Amino acid sequence: MDLRNFVDVNSRRKALEAHLNIDLSNMGTYSLDTEQASTKNCENMIGIVQVPLGIAGPIAIRNPQSAIRNYYIPLATTEGALVASVSRGCKAVTESGGVTVFSKKIGITRAPVFRVQNISEGNNVINWLEKNFSQIAEIAKSSSEHLTLLAIKPWLLGRSLYVRFSFDTQDAMGMNMATIAASVIAEFIEKETKIHCVAVSGNMCVDKKPNYLNFIEGRGYNILAECLISEKIITSVLKTEKAKILEVSERKLHQASILSGTIGSNAHIANVLSAIFLATGQDIAHVSECSMGVTTVEDDKEGLYISVYLPDLVVGTVGGGTSLATQKEALRIMGLDAQKEKGTGQKLAEIIGAAVLAGEISLLASLAENSLTKAHKKLGRGIK
Amino acid sequence: MDLRNFVDVNSRRKALEAHLNIDLSNMGTYSLDTEQASTKNCENMIGIVQVPLGIAGPIAIRNPQSAIRNYYIPLATTEGALVASVSRGCKAVTESGGVTVFSKKIGITRAPVFRVQNISEGNNVINWLEKNFSQIAEIAKSSSEHLTLLAIKPWLLGRSLYVRFSFDTQDAMGMNMATIAASVIAEFIEKETKIHCVAVSGNMCVDKKPNYLNFIEGRGYNILAECLISEKIITSVLKTEKAKILEVSERKLHQASILSGTIGSNAHIANVLSAIFLATGQDIAHVSECSMGVTTVEDDKEGLYISVYLPDLVVGTVGGGTSLATQKEALRIMGLDAQKEKGTGQKLAEIIGAAVLAGEISLLASLAENSLTKAHKKLGRGIK
Amino acid sequence: MDLRNFVDVNSRRKALEAHLNIDLSNMGTYSLDTEQASTKNCENMIGIVQVPLGIAGPIAIRNPQSAIRNYYIPLATTEGALVASVSRGCKAVTESGGVTVFSKKIGITRAPVFRVQNISEGNNVINWLEKNFSQIAEIAKSSSEHLTLLAIKPWLLGRSLYVRFSFDTQDAMGMNMATIAASVIAEFIEKETKIHCVAVSGNMCVDKKPNYLNFIEGRGYNILAECLISEKIITSVLKTEKAKILEVSERKLHQASILSGTIGSNAHIANVLSAIFLATGQDIAHVSECSMGVTTVEDDKEGLYISVYLPDLVVGTVGGGTSLATQKEALRIMGLDAQKEKGTGQKLAEIIGAAVLAGEISLLASLAENSLTKAHKKLGRGIK
Amino acid sequence: MDLRNFVDVNSRRKALEAHLNIDLSNMGTYSLDTEQASTKNCENMIGIVQVPLGIAGPIAIRNPQSAIRNYYIPLATTEGALVASVSRGCKAVTESGGVTVFSKKIGITRAPVFRVQNISEGNNVINWLEKNFSQIAEIAKSSSEHLTLLAIKPWLLGRSLYVRFSFDTQDAMGMNMATIAASVIAEFIEKETKIHCVAVSGNMCVDKKPNYLNFIEGRGYNILAECLISEKIITSVLKTEKAKILEVSERKLHQASILSGTIGSNAHIANVLSAIFLATGQDIAHVSECSMGVTTVEDDKEGLYISVYLPDLVVGTVGGGTSLATQKEALRIMGLDAQKEKGTGQKLAEIIGAAVLAGEISLLASLAENSLTKAHKKLGRGIK
Repeated sequence: MDLRNFVDVNSRRKALEAHLNIDLSNMGTYSLDTEQASTKNCENMIGIVQVPLGIAGPIAIRNPQSAIRNYYIPLATTEGALVASVSRGCKAVTESGGVTVFSKKIGITRAPVFRVQNISEGNNVINWLEKNFSQIAEIAKSSSEHLTLLAIKPWLLGRSLYVRFSFDTQDAMGMNMATIAASVIAEFIEKETKIHCVAVSGNMCVDKKPNYLNFIEGRGYNILAECLISEKIITSVLKTEKAKILEVSERKLHQASILSGTIGSNAHIANVLSAIFLATGQDIAHVSECSMGVTTVEDDKEGLYISVYLPDLVVGTVGGGTSLATQKEALRIMGLDAQKEKGTGQKLAEIIGAAVLAGEISLLASLAENSLTKAHKKLGRGIK
Repeated sequence: MDLRNFVDVNSRRKALEAHLNIDLSNMGTYSLDTEQASTKNCENMIGIVQVPLGIAGPIAIRNPQSAIRNYYIPLATTEGALVASVSRGCKAVTESGGVTVFSKKIGITRAPVFRVQNISEGNNVINWLEKNFSQIAEIAKSSSEHLTLLAIKPWLLGRSLYVRFSFDTQDAMGMNMATIAASVIAEFIEKETKIHCVAVSGNMCVDKKPNYLNFIEGRGYNILAECLISEKIITSVLKTEKAKILEVSERKLHQASILSGTIGSNAHIANVLSAIFLATGQDIAHVSECSMGVTTVEDDKEGLYISVYLPDLVVGTVGGGTSLATQKEALRIMGLDAQKEKGTGQKLAEIIGAAVLAGEISLLASLAENSLTKAHKKLGRGIK
Repeated sequence: MDLRNFVDVNSRRKALEAHLNIDLSNMGTYSLDTEQASTKNCENMIGIVQVPLGIAGPIAIRNPQSAIRNYYIPLATTEGALVASVSRGCKAVTESGGVTVFSKKIGITRAPVFRVQNISEGNNVINWLEKNFSQIAEIAKSSSEHLTLLAIKPWLLGRSLYVRFSFDTQDAMGMNMATIAASVIAEFIEKETKIHCVAVSGNMCVDKKPNYLNFIEGRGYNILAECLISEKIITSVLKTEKAKILEVSERKLHQASILSGTIGSNAHIANVLSAIFLATGQDIAHVSECSMGVTTVEDDKEGLYISVYLPDLVVGTVGGGTSLATQKEALRIMGLDAQKEKGTGQKLAEIIGAAVLAGEISLLASLAENSLTKAHKKLGRGIK
Repeated sequence: MDLRNFVDVNSRRKALEAHLNIDLSNMGTYSLDTEQASTKNCENMIGIVQVPLGIAGPIAIRNPQSAIRNYYIPLATTEGALVASVSRGCKAVTESGGVTVFSKKIGITRAPVFRVQNISEGNNVINWLEKNFSQIAEIAKSSSEHLTLLAIKPWLLGRSLYVRFSFDTQDAMGMNMATIAASVIAEFIEKETKIHCVAVSGNMCVDKKPNYLNFIEGRGYNILAECLISEKIITSVLKTEKAKILEVSERKLHQASILSGTIGSNAHIANVLSAIFLATGQDIAHVSECSMGVTTVEDDKEGLYISVYLPDLVVGTVGGGTSLATQKEALRIMGLDAQKEKGTGQKLAEIIGAAVLAGEISLLASLAENSLTKAHKKLGRGIK
């Protein structure tokens, strides 16, 4: 049966139901605009998947440019205990004065790979790229007015020349725009230098794989978040002791991350991050790279200092899944409306950083206080 | 506003709407069982997120135990072009005789960390663990009849003793069961050996982080899939040439993966994998580790040999998000009903392996044939 | 000029001197047996390189099988301050009661790569290997009576089948023996299974490259060493304070190792290890993998607990460079004479572990107390 | 026995001989200047280690700035077959027209770690560093006229601020100079910004550990070398076939390097590199990082294209072990005399790149043609 033959979502779903003799009626229950979704987000669409959405928070967040503000965090998840755990973390950090977040736009990257005859030709092209930056930037801009070329970084390996372009794509995550811009630039490079573009994506991008290049150089937004949690709140909200959290941090975060060859070092960044990604229409395949992050915990005379570092946070508030009805609502919960103001992409990145920090401190505290007998009776899903 | 104060999903959502002065009505449109979802999957639930679901395939799959069979692949995604691309790959492999898949159950792992006084005590406990394997296995079984202890692997690093337990959890992904079992075992170890369990999850599990330990030793299911694609199909379906795909493979997969410090080497495994995860109720935070994989492409006198290796595929067909209405329907599309037969978890892993392979060959072909002028006019989202 | 035309070392060196019009007389000053060296260790030999040898210690070492004993440590190095720094560390650990070392023989590994037609054939060969372990072990033994097959670990990736053999080679490092054994076994596998051996070394060995496989599974010897250093000795010998060493450890060892994507986490294991390797005739190319190690430092109510973990220590006391005159003398300084007793290879590994620990604590203390004004006046080479 | 009590090398050695009742007379046979060696290179010196030195080559090398020229390569090694294997590679590449080498000075790096109160303070210091680059460069210069500050790269992780300084140290490897400069700069930063320097080496240097940061950003010299080897020479000199080398390259270099989590991808770079390091007085502990490299092999209509990439080659021709008598002679064999001309450090790096390439092609050919029956009869040490 060729699923492309059907004119709309419903007829396609019904045909599949008949063909497989199964019931897909829940998939047919939705409110989103199928015209939009089936043309922009998903081919051969037959319906939707419903994922439970919970709310954590409020969490108090400040950044250097703004006063402190409270946010509710939408988390789409099927794993019990996550929302409760993040909520507890939000309470702990908020009562400690809030999370301070710093963000830097690194830009989305795309790196075509070219074939050169030899290293000499490769070096010549690298020099040419440097000299023609402004013309290349103009060509990039011609592909979309929403996109600006930020940087070009080349790598030469034998006959393979990789050129990593970084773009500012305003509030869009921008992978699609970046690919179009990279392909136009690659065409220009081919014409001017006579080298051949083997693939517009040469895996030095690096898109959707865990890798050290992005971890070290950054991609999307680079986030640093921190909070100083008082001893009182460690006792009253987190129900444990400072020394216990520090020991968990030393043995679980530091030593085991090294021993297991983990990229980064954290408790469960992927959990919180992927739940917000799903709620807000981000590309969840990016969890593969965005989940690389480092959590640090330090003793402080006033309590515990905790920080989170996310060097590769690829998100946006325009385009892709963010245009869908429920995802747009999730963004509104955090006051993010790309139509109304600029910079909502960066704000989303900052909120994710703060929410991830709340998730980290909550899980570290749970592990620290783990009462094993209680645990096996009603553990739920709190431990990752 | 304390969101825990509300008795049900609707009143909580409405309170949030009023509090923030926004409309969340799309989140309120769903058919799932909120009683079940709000108690088992998601605290502080206010509604659902709707994610478009498309169908790729059919794809012909064979494994050593079964005859060849066709499957439709449900893909929940918001990224245009993915379903179309996977569908093209399904056509190419199916017309080439199908994908052959081999799977091995490694088991889900959980690794508590204990504190020992010194290496000597650590070694004594390691010996004790070896001698008491069968008693530990019994204790594990007592925590759940669906769980069986498969292996114990210890690591000692100074005063930190990590004990990685692998469990067979039947058709469940089993992380929750494994945590409960590990906590019961840890309690037994504490009682018998007098060492202290610092955390029931010591990050040698390794759960939800990209890491070399899982990549090398495996976790969940270990999948190998392969297909021999004829020259004719390369031309007719994939619209490109063998030599071009081989060159993309060499420069993009091999050289750039090494140069960028990527774990694994592939085109876009994360894309296909995360779309099936989302459709079928898997824990999408696992994309962080499950997306580690290797794609190999080899010249063959009859065409192209392509294989995919997924050593860390953590999936299930029972529990977690798989119990939700639409996710259950997605599993049914692939004929997977854990209530009716055993082994559906492993079958799901095999189907994912085959679908990932279809996605790899399709994208490699697109990149190989990339006509740049066409690309920037109507690229969509086909390149990752 | 063809250097192979000369009958001996001196005539070859003199010919080169004449040809290049340079003086190489220092290279001609030596006492080693050129007949032996030029046939077994080095082709086209023209003389020797003289490397300064210093002595650190004594250092008190105990292992579970033996009483405590003092050792002098020979260090061949050209980097000033290293011997002095290790000596200070030896003093600190010896006055603290000595270093306790535990070692495990993992065995030397060699992994041929075979080509299979498909995964099915690969799996059949893997099953065949398992069933024929004892026959394969016999064949290995037939290649050398000093060698015993310990384990076989296969990996299948598409059409590439890697078979990692681990061997006990008694007190020899054994890479050569292992390669011969692997080639004989590969020949047997080819004959019996009809698959083709593409290369006797397929890089899953992994020989002489930094890699996570060896770091996680071990190679050669696996060493754990520890010491509890009292507060008094931290003050009197190491001239610093506990808290300062702990802070250096946290920021330098833990956080920076994660942030930089370092395999392992340590201060300067490579320094001490390579100096002993050079002194005792080890293969210094192995520094590439053997330098992967982890140093942990923990607060203790009685002082500082420090441990070192070396999972991939490839050394021996028989064969290779260990037969040369000065190298043999260096081994004798540590009481290691393979002709007189068995187990000297493992003892050497243990002594290296202890010496590395002494080097770690000494450098961490230097960094902790770094008086910058003094440093730039007479720093020498103490900081790595 | 306190070894520091002795006035000279001989009396110290004799005391040790008497104390341990062993003979160390070979260690006492040397021609180097003990006054110099025992004060600058090695404390508690008792003599020397003699390492056999062989000569490979000649090898024809060209770089973009110079005409082609032949070099003999000094290799200090105790591993039989290495010199012979490199010699064969030299012959193959020389008869193919020589190796073309490109080099770039990245500079030696040293990265102190500072403690900041919070991220805000860290960011302020980062801004301050940027604004004060020229003053910092002057301070660096004041520590040594041979040193020039090239770049400053900061990383902030919670309360840890790492500042990676890159220096041009002319023809010296320069680690010592860089440390002194970094300590003077750190003192200036402490004074001006009031933050505390925790350690002058904070492991983001990264010195003497295998790590992705250096692999990606480079350290010392960045080398690219290439050669096109004709089919005729593959047959006549390398005694094998193009297709066989390509298959070894695919399965051993590409697939296994990915599968084993190796940094880089090569046959035995560490072997050749460490033998030249030892011959020429380099710091052999640097093998831990310098051995990270990538070898690529490509089919070409005229034969085989092979390239080598060494992004982290830390070498020099002034200072450290390069001042010793035999090491100086080894440098002279390659025409390198830092007293006579500038740029010999970079030339040494280029020669190493070319020699490493010769070693790679020779071993790949040996593996490709491996006749197993012959191998186990007289294998020597040719396979790494």
